[in-house]
Amino acid sequence: MIKFYTGNKNYSSWSMRVGVLLAQAQIAHEETVLRMDGFGPDSNFKRQLRALSPTGKVPLLVDGDTTVWESLAIVEYLAERFPEKHLWPQERAARARARSVVAELHAGFGALRQHCSMSIEAHLPEVGALIWRDQAGVRADVARVVEIFSELLGRHGGPMLFGDFSIADAYYAPMCMRFATYELPLPPQAQAYVERVRQLPGVKAWVDAARAENDFLAFEEPYRLRSA
Amino acid sequence: MIKFYTGNKNYSSWSMRVGVLLAQAQIAHEETVLRMDGFGPDSNFKRQLRALSPTGKVPLLVDGDTTVWESLAIVEYLAERFPEKHLWPQERAARARARSVVAELHAGFGALRQHCSMSIEAHLPEVGALIWRDQAGVRADVARVVEIFSELLGRHGGPMLFGDFSIADAYYAPMCMRFATYELPLPPQAQAYVERVRQLPGVKAWVDAARAENDFLAFEEPYRLRSA
Ligand SMILES: N[C@@H](CCC(=O)N[C@@H](CS)C(=O)NCC(=O)O)C(=O)O
Ligand SMILES: N[C@@H](CCC(=O)N[C@@H](CS)C(=O)NCC(=O)O)C(=O)O
Repeated sequence: MIKFYTGNKNYSSWSMRVGVLLAQAQIAHEETVLRMDGFGPDSNFKRQLRALSPTGKVPLLVDGDTTVWESLAIVEYLAERFPEKHLWPQERAARARARSVVAELHAGFGALRQHCSMSIEAHLPEVGALIWRDQAGVRADVARVVEIFSELLGRHGGPMLFGDFSIADAYYAPMCMRFATYELPLPPQAQAYVERVRQLPGVKAWVDAARAENDFLAFEEPYRLRSA
Repeated sequence: MIKFYTGNKNYSSWSMRVGVLLAQAQIAHEETVLRMDGFGPDSNFKRQLRALSPTGKVPLLVDGDTTVWESLAIVEYLAERFPEKHLWPQERAARARARSVVAELHAGFGALRQHCSMSIEAHLPEVGALIWRDQAGVRADVARVVEIFSELLGRHGGPMLFGDFSIADAYYAPMCMRFATYELPLPPQAQAYVERVRQLPGVKAWVDAARAENDFLAFEEPYRLRSA
């Protein structure tokens, strides 16, 4: 049985990509939530991970003897391991595009990640309005995400980025959560896609679990003193 | 014929990964060097890329109708397109490890990238010694790279990270260039691997072309007023 290690579901955007993919593709697995009590060497989080992972980060996948770390390597591994699930688009050119936008997200969108940290249960429209006013980097990142959504939805006709659900939607799901929490302004087509992502059963399951955690981690919360 | 667009070979570490892979695997292609006169919207670099790439960055690969951007998506594309070249390790667990260390590099090692920018023709041991003394982040990044090299060379027996040359070596080649330019202290096993990488024909060809450019770009040179 595949073992999946995740951080707090409310906060761990990297873990969410893998968690949504596993759920949405209905891949049987055993899940362990490692509470992110801190990232210092003496935290429980790091102590538990030390024995498991060479980087000490989540997400982490263990399949028998094989340990896979880094969200992108994990989704590639799952795509190979379960070819019948068609986790990447089936047509070669579409698959290349999917990998391009996924790699873009893996390395980029630093301003959006820095200023709009993921906290699924939070609702921070006023903070979002200030960020939108002051942070040109965030506006540029959002503009590029909107461009990606609109190009792909236009080309493949929706409802998901490549028609059917694929790794690309799982990868952009945490981005959709940020858009919702901070109510960043989106054109209607992008907004409608965000709503469709939030309605996916695999996303709903993740969000419900995140809300149920009720675990407020101050170091993950630049804008709040407590949960709402 | 596959078209490969690269920036200045002396500076463009992202392009180098793809360039080394193409050369080392002897994949026929047509190369265009886009001189990085600047990254502003009116630069020639951006003007030429605008028509070609959705992100306006290099490397970029165009194969008939298919445009692939982001170095990681490009190497995956090449691995699929030329299965007979075995660009990834053939065994599944090794391939998962290779993708993990490649994804780690795609998203990480920010301190090393920031402080030790690639400039192949430069030789900056004194700058390197100061960086080594002052930048704990660089020391931590180097420690992780050394750990990766030593784990993989030990496990697969060398000479390359996964035995034979693979995408992982191409991906870490610019890192080897940084180590050489700044003479960062490495344990013997890692140092020997760096030397082997520098001797690969695909790397030598890239380095020779980088040296022949003789094109000093001040904005890529935090430590020099002119080339040596
Ligand atoms: N590039 C990695 C990033 C993973 C990551 O940064 N995970 C966070 C939690 S969301 C973590 O474990 N942080 C611990 C640390 O930074 O020490 C991936 O794609 O998996
Ligand atoms: N994550 C990208 C990074 C590409 C990148 O940043 N390339 C640089 C040259 S080495 C570039 O084109 N920069 C132009 C810019 O930042 O506007 C990749 O893997 O290809």
